[in-house]
Amino acid sequence: MEKISSLQNKLIFKAGEIASSIGLNKSMGQIYAALYLEKKKMTLNDISEVCRMSKGNISINIRRLEKWGAVEKVWGNEKRKDYYQANRDIAGFAFEHIIAAFSDLLERSRESVREAQIELKKLSSPSLSAEEEKKAALYGKSLGEFEEILGRVEKLMENARRIKKMINE
Amino acid sequence: MEKISSLQNKLIFKAGEIASSIGLNKSMGQIYAALYLEKKKMTLNDISEVCRMSKGNISINIRRLEKWGAVEKVWGNEKRKDYYQANRDIAGFAFEHIIAAFSDLLERSRESVREAQIELKKLSSPSLSAEEEKKAALYGKSLGEFEEILGRVEKLMENARRIKKMINE
Repeated sequence: MEKISSLQNKLIFKAGEIASSIGLNKSMGQIYAALYLEKKKMTLNDISEVCRMSKGNISINIRRLEKWGAVEKVWGNEKRKDYYQANRDIAGFAFEHIIAAFSDLLERSRESVREAQIELKKLSSPSLSAEEEKKAALYGKSLGEFEEILGRVEKLMENARRIKKMINE
Repeated sequence: MEKISSLQNKLIFKAGEIASSIGLNKSMGQIYAALYLEKKKMTLNDISEVCRMSKGNISINIRRLEKWGAVEKVWGNEKRKDYYQANRDIAGFAFEHIIAAFSDLLERSRESVREAQIELKKLSSPSLSAEEEKKAALYGKSLGEFEEILGRVEKLMENARRIKKMINE
């Protein structure tokens, strides 16, 4: 089995590298790859053996993977042991994750714009100099333009689910 | 102008925070926000004043922004000075950047799968035990499934440009 397990190691290592390169956690990539490749439910012990990783590290990262919907806890043969298996629909859970991250980003951007617009309104008073008036108007315009872009991205995202379904069909 | 420039500072600071939160560079977010908000071409000196950042740091990050297509160098009034302005089509350049990052990720994933498939082929010989045969077949199947997902994502990306255009219309 030496050559087979050397290939297994290489693939798991590669998955960690790819995960790192896109700003994800290396261990998450490795654990997911092990579960995906083996195509069976595994305990923390099993994963620890395949990935050569501490059970503590696996435990932390398997919880992250569960949150992503990339891995799920399942019933196993042995009682009192947690088993995990990979959600093999990578495109599906990655898509959901990306949509959630974008929604969050959009919401925070909207909030910042809203706050700035309120402050800008408070600033406008007859006491403003001509130059100040000009700056305030400029910032108001830039914020408005940015708000319009956020609206367009929001619309794109609302359509994203529909489009994904369309393409899968 | 005190209150106006305090609002300007807040907005630039916020843009840095948002950039950080999505794994981007804080300075890139701040510089872009300054150029977007002011809506005019600015020299490194101008940006340095507004962002309260060293010219060295601005210089590095403005080059990154140029690579993204988020900022462009333009002709200014003063000779021998570089002027910069924001590309205001945020959705446009962000979209291009995301597509490029996905293409790169896809290409590297395909390459890893291809390499593994070649190694797997080399492994199969009459000398393999029944257990080894089984493992090799399992890995081959998992790699095949993963390759199919990559194909679907590729198809989605090919359609992405068309879909974006559709929605903008």
